[in-house]
Formats: sequence, C-alpha cells, structure tokens
Amino acid sequence: MMKKLIDTIQKKPLYGWLLFGAISIGIFILGLLAASITERRAEIVSVFNNKKVEIIGIESRNELWGKNYPREYETWKQTEESDFRSKHLGNAPEDVLEARPNMVILWAGYAFSRDYSAPRGHWYAVNDVRNTLRTGAPGLDEKELQPSTCWTCKSPDVPRLMQEKGIEAFYHDKWSNFGSEIVNPIGCADCHDPKTMNLTITRPALIEAFARQGKDIKNAKAQEMRSLVCAQCHVEYYFKGDGKYLTFPWDSGTSIEAMETYYDNVQHVDFVHQLSKAPILKAQHPDYELFLIGPHAKRGLACADCHMPYKTEGGIKYSDHHIMSPLKNVSNTCQTCHHDSEEQLKQYVYEYQDKALEIRNRLETELAKTHLMAEQAWKVGASETQMKTALNLIRQSQWRWDFAVASHGASFHAPVETQRILAHGLDRALTAQLELQKVLFRLGHTEDMTFADISTKDKAQAYIGLKMDELRNNKSEFLKTTVPTWIQSARDNKRLLQ
Amino acid sequence: MMKKLIDTIQKKPLYGWLLFGAISIGIFILGLLAASITERRAEIVSVFNNKKVEIIGIESRNELWGKNYPREYETWKQTEESDFRSKHLGNAPEDVLEARPNMVILWAGYAFSRDYSAPRGHWYAVNDVRNTLRTGAPGLDEKELQPSTCWTCKSPDVPRLMQEKGIEAFYHDKWSNFGSEIVNPIGCADCHDPKTMNLTITRPALIEAFARQGKDIKNAKAQEMRSLVCAQCHVEYYFKGDGKYLTFPWDSGTSIEAMETYYDNVQHVDFVHQLSKAPILKAQHPDYELFLIGPHAKRGLACADCHMPYKTEGGIKYSDHHIMSPLKNVSNTCQTCHHDSEEQLKQYVYEYQDKALEIRNRLETELAKTHLMAEQAWKVGASETQMKTALNLIRQSQWRWDFAVASHGASFHAPVETQRILAHGLDRALTAQLELQKVLFRLGHTEDMTFADISTKDKAQAYIGLKMDELRNNKSEFLKTTVPTWIQSARDNKRLLQ
Repeated sequence: MMKKLIDTIQKKPLYGWLLFGAISIGIFILGLLAASITERRAEIVSVFNNKKVEIIGIESRNELWGKNYPREYETWKQTEESDFRSKHLGNAPEDVLEARPNMVILWAGYAFSRDYSAPRGHWYAVNDVRNTLRTGAPGLDEKELQPSTCWTCKSPDVPRLMQEKGIEAFYHDKWSNFGSEIVNPIGCADCHDPKTMNLTITRPALIEAFARQGKDIKNAKAQEMRSLVCAQCHVEYYFKGDGKYLTFPWDSGTSIEAMETYYDNVQHVDFVHQLSKAPILKAQHPDYELFLIGPHAKRGLACADCHMPYKTEGGIKYSDHHIMSPLKNVSNTCQTCHHDSEEQLKQYVYEYQDKALEIRNRLETELAKTHLMAEQAWKVGASETQMKTALNLIRQSQWRWDFAVASHGASFHAPVETQRILAHGLDRALTAQLELQKVLFRLGHTEDMTFADISTKDKAQAYIGLKMDELRNNKSEFLKTTVPTWIQSARDNKRLLQ
Repeated sequence: MMKKLIDTIQKKPLYGWLLFGAISIGIFILGLLAASITERRAEIVSVFNNKKVEIIGIESRNELWGKNYPREYETWKQTEESDFRSKHLGNAPEDVLEARPNMVILWAGYAFSRDYSAPRGHWYAVNDVRNTLRTGAPGLDEKELQPSTCWTCKSPDVPRLMQEKGIEAFYHDKWSNFGSEIVNPIGCADCHDPKTMNLTITRPALIEAFARQGKDIKNAKAQEMRSLVCAQCHVEYYFKGDGKYLTFPWDSGTSIEAMETYYDNVQHVDFVHQLSKAPILKAQHPDYELFLIGPHAKRGLACADCHMPYKTEGGIKYSDHHIMSPLKNVSNTCQTCHHDSEEQLKQYVYEYQDKALEIRNRLETELAKTHLMAEQAWKVGASETQMKTALNLIRQSQWRWDFAVASHGASFHAPVETQRILAHGLDRALTAQLELQKVLFRLGHTEDMTFADISTKDKAQAYIGLKMDELRNNKSEFLKTTVPTWIQSARDNKRLLQ
C-alpha cells in the first residue's frame, strides 16, 4: 500500500508537489505564530526596558506612572466615566438620601445624615471627599468633623505621608491638615511596587489584621493578591481609640457575626444615635468579606477577574484598570465562564438585586420607625433599664442593615448571605419594636403612635435638626476659598502635576 | 522534500511498513467503535422488539412493566432504600414533629399536627399514606378524615380509576372507599405511555392548570416533559370546593405571591387555626414552582437531569429511576457540569441549607408564639374587629413558612428566593405580634405573657387537646384489621401481583 502511494507520487509528480505545498503552508503559519509570540514577549520586555521615567520610592503622581504604562493609565483614567448605573434599579441614584429619606433618620447624629451619594470611580476619590458635606468646612464650621484617618483610602499620597510622618502620626491629626498633601486620587502606587510592578500592600491596617490572625500577608499567592490589594480599602474597618488608628475588626473572623462580636468585646460605638440613643456601629463597605462568602470566591476568582478583566491591544495583554461594574463589560467578564446571553446574565443579577431590595426596603422602613419609637419612649420618661433590650436590638439591626447596604454589590457577591443578613436585621428591628411598644404602653401611652413626616430628605433632615443651608453655605465657601489654596500649594510643591 | 521522503521509504521499507501498521490499527479501532454503535442501536431496538409482556391501557402493576424494562424497574425498586439523609442537617429526622414541636402548634386543628414524618421514596407512597395518622382509622374514628382526592398522587391505580369512574367521581368520595383499588405505589404508568414509552401526563390537574393559562401541555418539549411529569404531583395544589376537585392555584402565575392572590381571590381556607382562629393556607410541596425560579431551571435543566441521571450498563444508556437527592450521586449529577470536588459541592448545598434553616428556626418559633398570643387575646375577650389585622398577617406568615418548609429541597432549588420568602414570613409573624400585643394591652393585659410549655411533641400535642393514645390505637387496629382486607381483595382482583 505504502509502495503504491510512493509509486503514484513518482508517476504523478503533481500529487507530490501538492502535498509539499500543503506542508509548506502549514510550516509558514507556524512560523507566523512563533513570530507573534516572540513579538509579544519582546513588546512586554520593551515595556520594562523602555521606561520613560524612573520611578523611585512612593510616587503618588499617577501621571508619571502613566508615561511608562500608558495602557493601564489610560484605562485607569476612564474611571472618570462613572456613567454606568444599573438602569434596572431605582436604588442607585445620585443622591441616595433624596431617594431614601429613612436613611437620614437611621444616621441621625452622624455625618452620613447630611450627605450620602452613590459611589463614583477611583478618579473622584479626592474630589468627592473634599466635596461631601460629611467632611464639613474646616475653619468655617464650629469644629472639625473628621480626623486625618478619613483620607486613608483616598490617595497614593497616603502611603507617602505615612512613610514621612509615621503611621500613628498620620492617623492622629486633623483631616484639614493634609489638604495640600493628599491630592492625587487612588492610583498606581496604592497597589504596585514601582520596581517590579508586582502587586503590593501599602496600607498597614490589612497587614496588621493578617498579623493579628497569625498570618503573614507576604505569603499571599499571586491570585490572592489580585483581591487583597482591593481589600486594603473595600472592607469593614473602624477608627480605633483616640488615636483614630484605622483597624480591621477581623480578629475572630470576617463574618458579620464575628465582626460584631469583636466590636461588642471592645465595646466600640461609632455614634450614639441622636433619637434612640442606641450605641450604633457604622458599617463601612465590607465588600471583600462578603465576596469571600459568595460562590465566585469559592471557585477561586479574585476581584480583578471581574472588575479588571484582561484586555488585548496589539501584542500586549493587560488588565483593564477601568474598574467598574462587570455588568458594563459582560462579554469580557461573566461570559468568560458563563455560556448565557448578556441579557440573561444581567437579568440573573437584577433578580438578586430585586430580592435583596425587597427585604432592605422593609428593614429600612421598620428600623427608622424603631428609632422614632425609642425617641418617643425617652420623651415620655422611659428609664435606661427599660430601654436596654430595645437599644441593643437596634444596634444589632442597624449593623445588619448597614452591612448589607453599604457593601458594594452585596446582593451579587453573596446573594444568599445578604438575604440572611437582611432577614436577621428585620427580625431585630421588629423585636425591638415589640420591646418599645411594651415600654410605651406601660408608661401609659396606649394610643397608636403618630410618626413625624420624614417622607423627603428635607423633611427628615429638618426633623433631626440639621441646618442644611448653613452646612451647604459653609461647604460652598470652603470649596471656593480653602480648597484652591490646597491645590495651589500642592502644585507649588510638585505634589500635583496638573 | 517530498521526494526525499519517498526515497527514504523506498530505501528503508521498514518505515513504510510501520506507517502501514499504524494506519491499520487506527482503522481497526474505528471498526470497533462502529460495531459498538451498531450493537448499542441493536440492543435498544431489541428492548422494544423483545417485550415479554404486552402492556395495554393504564397498567398500574409496576411488576409487569418490569418484565419489559428490567433496568428502569430495578432502579425504581431501589426507592425502597430511603437511607440517604443529609447527615449534615438535624432537620431531616424520621419524626419531624418530635424534632420541631412548634410545628404541632402551627398545625393545630389540622391533621398534620398528629403526624409528620420525613418523606421517603416513591416505593412507600401507598404504605405511608395508609400508615400516617393523618388519614386516621376509617370505621374506627368518629368521622373519616380524608377525601379520596388524598390518593391522587400515590399510585398509578389513580389514572386507571379516573378512567373507570370519571375524574369528578374519583375525587368526590371517601378515602377509605378506594383502599382495595389503590395498591401499587407511584410507578411506571404515572409517567409513561405504554405504547411508545414516551413521557405522558396522567393527572388532570396539571393539564387543566395549563389550559386555564391558555397553554396546551401537549405542546411541551421533550426536555420540559422531564420536569412536567414530576410537576403532576410535586407542586402546590388544593382540594377545590365540596367536590374536593384537585386544582393548582396557578391561574395568575406560579410565584408564592401569585398563588396567594389566587387563594385570596377565591377565599380559600385550608383550615381555621384551632388556637388563633386564623384562616390558614396549608402549602403542599411547591417543588416545581420553586425549581422554576432557581438557577438550574434557568439554565434549561429538568428535574430528571439531577434526580434521574443517565446510567450506562453494557450497551444501554438509561435513566436511573432510583429518584433521590442528587447529593447521593454527585459524580453523575452535579459533576456533569461543575468542576468542584464532591466535598465542595456538598458543602455549597449544606451552606444554603444552614442559612435557610437559621431564618426558618426564627420564623417557626415566632409564628408559634403568635398563634399562642392570638389564642390569649381571644381568651381575654378580643373582638373580631380587633383581631382582623393580626389574623390576616398570621395567614400570610404561615403560608410563607409552609411554602419554604414543605417544598423539598427549597434552599437548594431556589436559594435566594427561599431566603426572601422566609424573611417575609418572619416579617409578618412579628408584625402580627405587634398587633396582638396592642390588643392584649388595650384589654388590660400589660404583664409579660407566659407561654404554655410546648417544648416536646407530646407536650405540644397535649396542649392542643389531641388524644394521641386513642389515635394511635385506632390506627394500629385499622392497620391490623382493615388494611389486610384491602390487600387481600386487591390480590383476589389481580390489582396487586404480590
């Protein structure tokens, strides 16, 4: 048979040449592929070899890094486009308090009752913390609202300052004292080592939280680091003691109950509620902790897998630094693993959001009512002993409400856990009402309680006695006078390049 | 180059022979494969051609079908092994009321408060309905507890009887009148057309529910049928009107709210609660409805994909009729799609179960308490007007509790929806308590309520006045005297082969 084939080729040389041609084409294509691989490697090497600027130490000016890493920088700059809102949801408005005036009541006595807007991209980090009424108008207000710790997650100027001043000194200052120093929004130096471009942890709180759990964060694997750099900020934390030392409450675990136990043990109170006098815990944004519980983390995914998917441009594959909702980019994120249509995938997420929102709405309404009932009970002469059980339940309820609500993407990251948390929150709010109703009745108030009109943000803020005009005027003045001097000073000192 | 190859082969014929040998082996393997495919086809054809018995009409004797389809029959018989319990959960005990005495209170005034055991395999369907205290001891009890409709899902004798007597007449009878007719447990004829062995719907309620929604079930696709045959029974239904006509409340949809609306509209009440007087809905087992909402149905899976996975034996691939928890058979079920270890996959399910159980436990405790509070309110002279709001909330709460609890595998089939349902149930139980507390206080009962001791099944059953000894004795007598005559009569009439 083989001989016959050879004979044929010898007799009809055309066959031989055809075979030869086919093999040649194959080899040529292989050559092209090999060249492409070589070129890709070469381009990567060239990125490192042809750095335009030498970056030394903690370099907080993102623009300088941008000269060496233009792709990452340009996509990072796109975080300025915070146009993506889940169109589906009414719960992502600009002004959250306007949409949900109950939240004004929940935060009565705390700066969040003044102003709470939907989160925006990293590009806005410094601007937004200057602009929010939560930082007030230092120099114009009666007293300064926030400590310097408040800057910790806003800028790569923070690790630079920490290195210069020491960590404790950084935390233990006034917020306004660093206005001309902290000027570059969250960027390159927050997560990257300039020498190797490896991911690195720049915030002490995460390193310290690991250490207290007996773990060395230096042993974290590469894939873990792709979440841990985010976990420097996207976590639950508090400002510990008079030194306002930023601390993660992770000593006995990262579940909502473990963190509550931690706070109870150290008797931490973020604020005493203005109306109910309940000792409230303000949840920050426990994104990482909830993510860890959810199905994606359990399958080994990292934050960056969905929030910074790989992108290809010419011969270069790089991480998209336009950190966003993966729903803006379903084809490069969800669809890497899930064989559903974009429409279906979005729909799955929207359903989770809707179901969480249902319980959140109930909890928010009832918890606000609970604060008002407690206020009423104090007014008619309730004693601390009578109020104790209810106030503790309010603390527990609000911790659960805030935890589920403040965590970005909670209902997606850990859908079942989020429902569980919200259900427990609602449970405790209503149980507190049962206690308060008893107290009120026993003090002789058996009539149905009439609640104050808190149906709009303005009405709710007026009810808790906020002088919003004054706060807004002061802020406006502060932005017109103080902030420009900060910026000018930063420019003069070359802290700011633009 | 080609020429060089040919030259080599000519000079070294061994190379040529090696190539020839390799090609020959490849062709031989192809031949084997082809033979295997042909053999498999032939065996399938032979299964149909070599039927040992001719099955005509509605043949309820499973053993006869077993002669033709031994593999399916033998695996079906394995449903006798109901040894699999989620070891992880304490919530799947033999005697559920023993483990959860609150359930006795929740069902006070309804037969479920007498007896509620963990579900067992299809093989037990007829035995279990005879044995349960819920069907009582006809002839020995004061009056008969259940209508004949109660048999509907227990046996392939049902479609046979329906054909003989007409559907309405079948439903409109006493349970005990069909004791000698309904003797073969859920089996072949419930889901298969004996001529084609195609899946078929034998229960009118599902066909009628489709029709009322403007759909013809005959248009269902093959994959849909692999769920719909299960949905003949594993659904929510009620016994409509005096004719006890089995009806699905699906007219405005299959969500828990849509079905509640249906029941409210037709003012259906399964029982008036003995203690609270609330007009209660008893959820059946809305497995299909919850499955439809969950992630697996959304990806196009059918019940049979996980509960009856394909099995291979020799040349035959067939569905495993040992219907069970897929957790007993992870490698043939979950792992068909999920690349996680068996341990991990089980753990994911257990976590869902745990989270649902947490809220269920709270709801069950509080709802039982709510019934007791309502009982107390009646006792101290509450009026119907005063009780109206609370009783309606109790109805809503109990519907949600029962829906989530009665549905097999709810926390797996639709984990987020199940949490949502339980949260709403807890919400309504506690809101009812707030109402009842008001009523009690206004009637002058301001002291803390002391609840009866219902900490064991015996105590709870005694509290609601059940004479369990009498019920058990009657049942025992009934099983000793009546049931054997049923079985003997069925054997005499060849309704039963064994």
